[in-house]
Formats: sequence, structure tokens, C-alpha cells
Amino acid sequence: MSIIEYMNSVGQQARTASRVIGTADAGTKNAALLATADAINESREDLTRANAEDMAKGKSSGLDSALLDRLELTPSRIDGMIEGLQQVAALPDPCGEITDLKYRPSGIQVGKMRVPLGVIGIIYESRPNVTVDAASLCLKSGNACILRGGSEAIHSNQAIAQCINVGLKAANLPEACVQVIETTDREAVGRLIAMPEYVDVIVPRGGKGLIERISNDAKVAVIKHLDGICHVYIDDKADMDKAFEIAVNAKTHRYGVCNAMETLLVHASVAGEILPKLAHAYGEKGVELRGCDATQSIIQCVPATEEDWGTEYLAPILSIRVVADMEAAMSHIETYSSQHTESIITEDYTRARRFLTAVDSSSVMVNASTRFADGFEYGLGAEIGISTDKIHARGPVGLEGLTSQKWIVLGDGHIRV
Amino acid sequence: MSIIEYMNSVGQQARTASRVIGTADAGTKNAALLATADAINESREDLTRANAEDMAKGKSSGLDSALLDRLELTPSRIDGMIEGLQQVAALPDPCGEITDLKYRPSGIQVGKMRVPLGVIGIIYESRPNVTVDAASLCLKSGNACILRGGSEAIHSNQAIAQCINVGLKAANLPEACVQVIETTDREAVGRLIAMPEYVDVIVPRGGKGLIERISNDAKVAVIKHLDGICHVYIDDKADMDKAFEIAVNAKTHRYGVCNAMETLLVHASVAGEILPKLAHAYGEKGVELRGCDATQSIIQCVPATEEDWGTEYLAPILSIRVVADMEAAMSHIETYSSQHTESIITEDYTRARRFLTAVDSSSVMVNASTRFADGFEYGLGAEIGISTDKIHARGPVGLEGLTSQKWIVLGDGHIRV
Repeated sequence: MSIIEYMNSVGQQARTASRVIGTADAGTKNAALLATADAINESREDLTRANAEDMAKGKSSGLDSALLDRLELTPSRIDGMIEGLQQVAALPDPCGEITDLKYRPSGIQVGKMRVPLGVIGIIYESRPNVTVDAASLCLKSGNACILRGGSEAIHSNQAIAQCINVGLKAANLPEACVQVIETTDREAVGRLIAMPEYVDVIVPRGGKGLIERISNDAKVAVIKHLDGICHVYIDDKADMDKAFEIAVNAKTHRYGVCNAMETLLVHASVAGEILPKLAHAYGEKGVELRGCDATQSIIQCVPATEEDWGTEYLAPILSIRVVADMEAAMSHIETYSSQHTESIITEDYTRARRFLTAVDSSSVMVNASTRFADGFEYGLGAEIGISTDKIHARGPVGLEGLTSQKWIVLGDGHIRV
Repeated sequence: MSIIEYMNSVGQQARTASRVIGTADAGTKNAALLATADAINESREDLTRANAEDMAKGKSSGLDSALLDRLELTPSRIDGMIEGLQQVAALPDPCGEITDLKYRPSGIQVGKMRVPLGVIGIIYESRPNVTVDAASLCLKSGNACILRGGSEAIHSNQAIAQCINVGLKAANLPEACVQVIETTDREAVGRLIAMPEYVDVIVPRGGKGLIERISNDAKVAVIKHLDGICHVYIDDKADMDKAFEIAVNAKTHRYGVCNAMETLLVHASVAGEILPKLAHAYGEKGVELRGCDATQSIIQCVPATEEDWGTEYLAPILSIRVVADMEAAMSHIETYSSQHTESIITEDYTRARRFLTAVDSSSVMVNASTRFADGFEYGLGAEIGISTDKIHARGPVGLEGLTSQKWIVLGDGHIRV
């Protein structure tokens, strides 16, 4: 069987399974999730053995230590997968929710019903626990899914897939609700993203290169997350204590995450007061500072280049720019932001209101750390990713982002006159 | 200036204008709409003259009568444009609406704010009144738009564009909020759908060929409407009077519309009762019937071929199939429907509920004519089109479909711990 034939068969099976999972009730879906959690718990040895195989191969093929770290299935990561499944089972079922049902002058009742998207293709890199995370969210939202993990994690992913199959079977759901692609051939990805007859949406999770490649070639919709070049703007009307705490937290709470601040914008009239304090705090944490001319005249730092403003460091590096006012800060954001998350620190009501309204990013905040831009923090219960697109879903994407709404019309013999 | 340079300039101007219109208040946007209505009213002669030029050219180049009819700007169509503008002005502004603002355990308040998409490209065919319809919906929803009408309507569209410019100016909004492409060169369309840096979404309005071409080549999201192969299923538990009225209305109220019924499915045990009555009614209206074997044994009709089930006639033709039960009807729909609109006629509670839940179409109805699938009938006030996609918007797309939601976070110095 060629790769194309194999993928067509996977697609066809997913489409058929989607019709079953799409109308399965919450109890059935939850039973599958909890049975999967049990299966994982009982398969710890198998999972660890399969993962050891991937790890050995990864080491011998020279994977770097960061990749190897992500690849490893430690006991606590296995615990995490089990907890994740239990958490998703505990979330409310988004499917079938009817809203806005209203009578129209014609006499019909019109409303919306939340429904699954159908079949979701997920393409990800080395972390095998994504297999469970992604599958559980798709399953709970009534979607069939086709998972394509990194080739370096193939044995781990197959072992996890077996546990999911056990869970699906226990709930009398078709195994094809969750399919893990069995080949590491790259052609499989090319086909997965180009068969709209079988796949409704692609969610790529991984580095920018992967996501750009997939977006360019996809023939179906892509829920994608590109850069997170997040900004915090400290206004002259800011409470300086809050500003200090948030600026430190947004940069240093974690470095390698998309919602970390990459550029700090400071109003000129408070830069002299707050920047030295911040520079001291950043210095203690080993954060490298790169500043504009005005910043350089206040604190010691590397000169920031034009390239700095457009860079997602994902590292203990921060670029700092002193700006004339909020409009200048917003203009900087408009030019350089990746439209992920921006926060203003101010006590001024009118400015807070204007910043919230006018800044065109997936999350806009007042007096809060950009690190809050996260599905769990927002109460989604879980997230499949953060969308930097505007169509369909913006920002953290949870169960609801994996659904759509159809119209329902209730009549009593109504005809159009 | 090359076409590419011209389109880039149009795109850049639209992007800049979108920042202004995106935060304009409802009063300003309404003022622009009403001033445009006034300008159109005062420019009736100019519009008629420009349209006459298009009509003359259309006749001499041999456009068929249907196209010429759509191209014509009659006084009543000009009235329609003015009324449309007034209606859109009267609709509530979707932008800035904040929903679901809730406290999270961390102390932050998280909610969603409805925001414009940015820049919308609209590609349409001969009807010049679409220029006003599309521009008004984009404007009211806070989006800049780039309109590309049919080459046969270029003079009419330019004359309408001038009225819109007068309206925008009167409200102190940038003229680039609405741009009508001045060239009929096809390369302009190719560029319009492939510049994600300037255009956020494309809405093609026209024949299937146009829409398929655009969907295949677009590098930005497309809100598209393909076929409307709509079904009515008459269940054996139907009220036969309602079934008769709806089946007649869904087919014969208008023929050339996407929400007209194209296939009638009838439960075997009531086919003998209802089909002769329906055949008589259809016969009086000159509807050609094409039936399955069972249908042919009950009424006189042409044999339906496999191709019939997958055809959107847009004409006084109806295919009819007798089915064993509701599941068989749903299975037929699953195979042949274009996922536009389907209706079940039944008095059975459980079947109505199952049909509503399980049928995967943008509109699913009980005891109502498919002809209700329409933005005005649904209370959207206006519609830019009907989406047969699942991502972002399904079914009739009104102002809300031209917006997205961003997350807002209100804190008081909150940091992530």
C-alpha cells in the first residue's frame, strides 16, 4: 500500500468514525477518557519500554539534550497524562449546546447548536504526551482525530495509541476515532494536510518552521500559532509597584514560553524611576537587556537593533524601549507585535479602555502579567494551542475552539411567503 | 504602475484604514452609511448613466439576458441600495461587545471582546448592488474592504464607489475604508487572494466555478459558499398537511436560490399517500420530477440517475427518493448533501431531536421550509453570504460573521505564581 493509499484509508476511517463520536453522549466520551487513563496507568512498563527505545535511538542519532528532554516519558509525565485525561473528562461537553433560540416574526424559532468540526489532524514534534492531550480534547469535543507525532517519538506514540484504543473499545466507540499515523514518511504529512474530503482542520504544534511549512501547503483550514512577541507597556500613570512586579513576572516566570514578555515599553517620564530598579532585578536573574538609545542613557545594556524588536527570544533576553506616550507604545506594538498578548500597566481609566479596544492582539490585558495568556488560566480547562489567527479562534483554543455552530430552525409547518 | 504594485498599494491603504474604522464608534459608522445613502439618492442620474454604459457594452459583447438582468440598475434597485444602507445603519454595532467576563481563581477577570477581522476582500460577479451591500456590512462591522466586481459592471461599480467615498468623507473616515478595484485585469484577483499581510479574509460571491478557483488559489482564509443541495425528508409520522405545504414551498417559492429543495425524501409508508398530491401540485407549477424506482411506481416521472442526487438544479426540477426510514434518509443526506440546509417533517419528538443533532449541515430544520435559511429570516439584519464551511462561520453570515473575538484580561497588578 502506498503512503497515499494508506493516508486515504486513515482519512476515510476517520470520517466514518467522526459520525459516531460526533453524536456520542458525554457519558460515553468520558468513559473512553477514563478507561484510557486506566489503560495508561496499567501500561506504565510498556510505555517506559517503548520510550526507552525512542530515547536510545535519539541518543545514537545525536538528538540534542533539549529534544531528548522533551522526548522522555518520566513517571511524573505519565502521571500528568493520566491527570490530563481525568481533567478533560470532568469538563462540560461543549457539543449540542443550544443558544440564542428565539422566535422570528415569521413564527419560526431560530437558534444555534454547537457541533464538532469533524476530523482534526494534529501534527506535532517530539513530546509524546501531546498524543494523549490532543486525543482527549478532540474526543471530548466530538471530533475524530489523526495524529502525526515526531518520528523520534514513534514507539512512545504507538504505545500511547494502544492505551487510547483500549479506552475507546471499553466505551464501545470506534478505534478510528483516534488514529496515530504509523509511518514516519514525510509524504504522509503532505497528504494529511491536503485531503479536505477527510480532514476539516489541521492543528500544527511545534516550531515556527513546521507551522509555516504546513500553513503554506495546507489545502484545509489551519489553526496556527506562530510567534509570541509579547509587550508590556508601563504608562506614566502606572502604579510603579504593580509595574515592577508584572514586568519581572512577565519576563522571568518562564523564558521558553510564547506568553513571556519579549519587549518592555516604558513611558519616558517614568523610565528614569523604574528602569534602574528593573535592571537590578533582571540582573539578579541573569536576563540580558537590550535597549534603545534612551534606555542606554538610563541603565547599562546592549544597544537594541531593529531586529531585536521583531524577535521572539524565548530566552533570558529582553529588549527595552522608552516611548513618548501610550500612542507611541501602541504604534510600536502595531509594527512589531505578533498579535499574541500585550499588557498595559496604568491606573488611568481612559487609557486602559483605549488600549483594550485598539490593540489588535489575541489577548489584551490591563495590569496583569502576559503569562496569564493560557487556556488553563482563562478557565478553558485545557488547551490544544494558542491561535495567532483571527479567523475561527483567537488566543488559547480549548474544547470550544474545536467546535462550530450550526443553525437550527424549529417550525410547525412554516413556509416562506 | 504594475498590477502587483497597484494591488500592494490598495492593500497597504486598506490595512491603514482598517485601524481607523476598526475603532470608530457606531455613530460615526452609521453617519457614513446614511451619508452614502443620501449620496446615492442624489446621484441617481450618474448611476443610471454609468450603468447604461455597462449595459450597452454588455449587449454588444453578447452577455446573455440573465446576466444583463442582474447587471441592470433599475430605479427600484437603487431604492433597494438606499434602504439596505439604512437597514445596516439601524443594526446594532457588533464591535466592542464584551461577553463572559468572569473572575478566575488567580484573581484576574477574563472575558472576550468582539473585534473586526481587519481587511476583507470581496470578489463578486455582475450585480452592482453587491458593491453597496458588501461595503455597508464591512463598514458596520469595523472592517476595511477591497471590492472586486465583475468587469462587465465596472462603470456602475465605480459610480457607486464615488457615492461611498462621499459618505466616508462626510463622517471623517478614510476613503480607503472601501476601495473598489479600478482594473478589470484578472491578475488583480490573483494578487488580492494572496496577500495575507494586507487581507484577512476573502468572501467570494458568485458561481461555483469562481468560488472553487478562488478557494484553491487563496493564501488567506475564504468564507465560501459552494452548492446548496437541500433536502426535505417527509417522515411517516409527519402531519401530511404540513408536509405538503412545506414540500411545495421549499421547491417552488423560488427556483434559482441556494436554499431551494433539490431532493425530496419520502418515507415508504406514506409515499403512496403524499406523492400523487405533490406530483399534481408540482405539475401545475411546471416542475419536472425525477424519481427513484419506487417513486416511478407511484407517480409519473423521469427516472433519476445517480447524478441527479448530487445536482443543484437551481431550476424547476426536483429529484424524489422513497426511503425505508429516517436513518435511510439521513444516510442519503450524508452522501449527497452539500451540508447547506435539510429539513425533517415529523411529529415524532425523538426523531426530530435525532435529526437536529445528527445531520451535519449549516442549517437543520424541523417542520419548516428550507427557504428560511437566510440571514434576514434568521434575524441577522443582512447577510454577506451563506457559508458551507465549518470553520469560523456556518450558514448565513451577517455582521457577527465578519468579526472575531479577542480575549481581554483585567487585573490589578496580578502576576502568575
